[in-house]
Amino acid sequence: MTAARDDTHDPALASWVDSANHPDTDFPIQNLPYGRFRRKGTDEPWRIGVAIGDEVLDLRLAAELCPWGDPVLELLTPLAAGDLAAFMALGRPAWQTLRAALSRALSADSIQGAFLESCLVQQVDVQLSLPCEIGDYTDFYTSIHHATAVGGLFRPDNPLLPNYQWVPIGYHGRSSSIVVSGKSLRRPMGQIKLPDAAEPVLRASRRLDFELELGALIGSDNDLGHPVAMAQAEDHLFGLVLFNDWSARDIQPWEYQPLGPFISKNFGSTLSPWVVTMQALAPFRRPFKRPAGHPQPLPYLDSEANRSAGAIDIDVEVWLQTLRMKKAGHPGDRLSGSNYSEAAYWTLAQLVAHHTVGGCNLRTGDLLGTGTLSGPAPGQGGSLLELCGGGKTPLTLSTGEQRTFLEDGDTVILRGACAAEDARRIGFGDCRGTVLPSVD
Amino acid sequence: MTAARDDTHDPALASWVDSANHPDTDFPIQNLPYGRFRRKGTDEPWRIGVAIGDEVLDLRLAAELCPWGDPVLELLTPLAAGDLAAFMALGRPAWQTLRAALSRALSADSIQGAFLESCLVQQVDVQLSLPCEIGDYTDFYTSIHHATAVGGLFRPDNPLLPNYQWVPIGYHGRSSSIVVSGKSLRRPMGQIKLPDAAEPVLRASRRLDFELELGALIGSDNDLGHPVAMAQAEDHLFGLVLFNDWSARDIQPWEYQPLGPFISKNFGSTLSPWVVTMQALAPFRRPFKRPAGHPQPLPYLDSEANRSAGAIDIDVEVWLQTLRMKKAGHPGDRLSGSNYSEAAYWTLAQLVAHHTVGGCNLRTGDLLGTGTLSGPAPGQGGSLLELCGGGKTPLTLSTGEQRTFLEDGDTVILRGACAAEDARRIGFGDCRGTVLPSVD
Repeated sequence: MTAARDDTHDPALASWVDSANHPDTDFPIQNLPYGRFRRKGTDEPWRIGVAIGDEVLDLRLAAELCPWGDPVLELLTPLAAGDLAAFMALGRPAWQTLRAALSRALSADSIQGAFLESCLVQQVDVQLSLPCEIGDYTDFYTSIHHATAVGGLFRPDNPLLPNYQWVPIGYHGRSSSIVVSGKSLRRPMGQIKLPDAAEPVLRASRRLDFELELGALIGSDNDLGHPVAMAQAEDHLFGLVLFNDWSARDIQPWEYQPLGPFISKNFGSTLSPWVVTMQALAPFRRPFKRPAGHPQPLPYLDSEANRSAGAIDIDVEVWLQTLRMKKAGHPGDRLSGSNYSEAAYWTLAQLVAHHTVGGCNLRTGDLLGTGTLSGPAPGQGGSLLELCGGGKTPLTLSTGEQRTFLEDGDTVILRGACAAEDARRIGFGDCRGTVLPSVD
Repeated sequence: MTAARDDTHDPALASWVDSANHPDTDFPIQNLPYGRFRRKGTDEPWRIGVAIGDEVLDLRLAAELCPWGDPVLELLTPLAAGDLAAFMALGRPAWQTLRAALSRALSADSIQGAFLESCLVQQVDVQLSLPCEIGDYTDFYTSIHHATAVGGLFRPDNPLLPNYQWVPIGYHGRSSSIVVSGKSLRRPMGQIKLPDAAEPVLRASRRLDFELELGALIGSDNDLGHPVAMAQAEDHLFGLVLFNDWSARDIQPWEYQPLGPFISKNFGSTLSPWVVTMQALAPFRRPFKRPAGHPQPLPYLDSEANRSAGAIDIDVEVWLQTLRMKKAGHPGDRLSGSNYSEAAYWTLAQLVAHHTVGGCNLRTGDLLGTGTLSGPAPGQGGSLLELCGGGKTPLTLSTGEQRTFLEDGDTVILRGACAAEDARRIGFGDCRGTVLPSVD
């Protein structure tokens, strides 16, 4: 079910793009994530590019100016037209073929380098958009540590509901308000009912929070009425992004019974612009095991391949830069971090198999959120709700400022990276968003 | 906030299309709903048409073959190109202008009739699709009778949750699996945990149900971060359709805590093909009142216009045609019916104002479901769950067959119509779907 390692993963592979060889870059030649961009200050149509070191390889120019073989040129056609989704719909063999071609073209000894040099644009000179139009967005709840911690705040004597170990719990989210990293979001207004109040009031949220998540973008689709089996589940996954599912913790408890969160979530979510492909993540696949004493998944959620390599070793972390820090040129404080393979109780393949088991069709550009990726240890909470014990224990920042929830002007930055002894480190770039005051 | 009545609503207005003057037609000249069609047996690009009597006025041909003034021709341009959404995005003045022009052109004394006769195609000769691409889909829960009845099955001593009278409860639904009337849907598989079982099993749903709803399609959008006030809420509504939100009642109870329904809903929903515009519904607006003793809505959900005319008098009903009936040429039994103005505890304007209060952006083509429109009286339940007391009291059909939930081969048909003393009756056409066996 998982992409095998190949030459494109060779940790010794270097690029003729110097900045891609820097040990700290998120975008070495082993990564090659896709994004949608245009040159800053222009309103040219969006183009598709591949991040390489500090640069973007402009695939429109690359298709025009560089000699490619026929099959590769055909794969580049939708990308040259600015349509990442059309490429995502082509399926895994297409993704692998183009990855291999781009890897060769960007490698240090490539004869194509001379043609491609003029196809590079500095990342600092581009504006990025969402990588594609997002279709349906589903948010899951895959961290048992998050589910237990949050459940414990609502139900101290019964933190984890009995369905959790059987059902990959998820719900449909709001697509229209998903924005790309860098776009600010307004603090939402909403109905809030305080515990000691007789009636709710409309006011701005005072318990605004982030959620540290990964998002999976669907590549090839499945037909309505045709469930996807575990063995084929990962064939439908194009790649991963970072995802901040902002949440208003004081709106949620009043509204969420019986149909789930709504206004507390749909005011905005932030996506990182570079899609790290499943192929790039191949060296970081890990065995996936249920904790001792937990029931085995039902057969439709189980496979040998999922047990042997269903997990992905991705370190994720969240940083906070207050307005005061920003003004002082301070990059922000690291608030917490966890590892996807330790946080997740359900794998991506299981999410796809469960989502489609009733016949639901996934379409190219659909987004599956993992849910908040809290780790097992204290301090690995993926939300302020968890890090501050439901608002009771403030965090003290390096500036002396304190937070239980987010304040206006705060910037939240998610980061993610994969590292392994036998592989080149790859990263996701930043996923950042700033809180604007409410319209109140 | 509501469209005023004008000449297009004159009940005495007749059309040169004879079948539009039949008293039983859903589509007299006072209606003029939009749909997307192509001629049966062709794969021509989808066209936009207006239903009139038993015919469809092909707006592509009409734009080409009939003389129109400049402003009307401009409004017809996106429609002639098959793009209803582009027209929906133009906003209410555009919708009113074209409605007036089409009403004049189709009226009995129109000089345009000679040009338009060749632009008609029989409805029996066309295939219909979804009227536009559906963006985000939100389902509300606006019938207090449904909420109380269903809540009573889950929580006999606490049927209606305390937030219900304050919050227009809603949740995000699945867009990809919304299909047009006439498309069959497979009975879903899903995890089901019986009350006396220790563990869940994967099997086909045995408690498959319909939900009798109306859907509102968003016309003009609002920007992210900019709530829509009550006074402007209806400006964003293009029109209404019938909507069957199929539900698997045995999957739902096991999965829905804590984030809401998922597999129990996302296997499919059925939309009627003809969009009845808010302008066509103007004669059927009614005062909207809270029941005695209920709290008044918070100010952001209240307006004088909403109180005086927020409700819409639409009779909705559900019919069931079993496979045996179908084979015998029997049109099916009417199972139940209710009136939208009596069923709904929240108006459409309140749904828009609440949906956007936190800043969420509604986009052209988004769908708001009303939730199951159960009326106050016994026998007015909008689902089998209610009509059969949670599966305990079977319905006996006119053929002697019994049902507590749907069986394979059953066809569910929703219908809706508006009637008033001083207005011509208008209808919604059928919204039908047949249950196929599971893939099991």
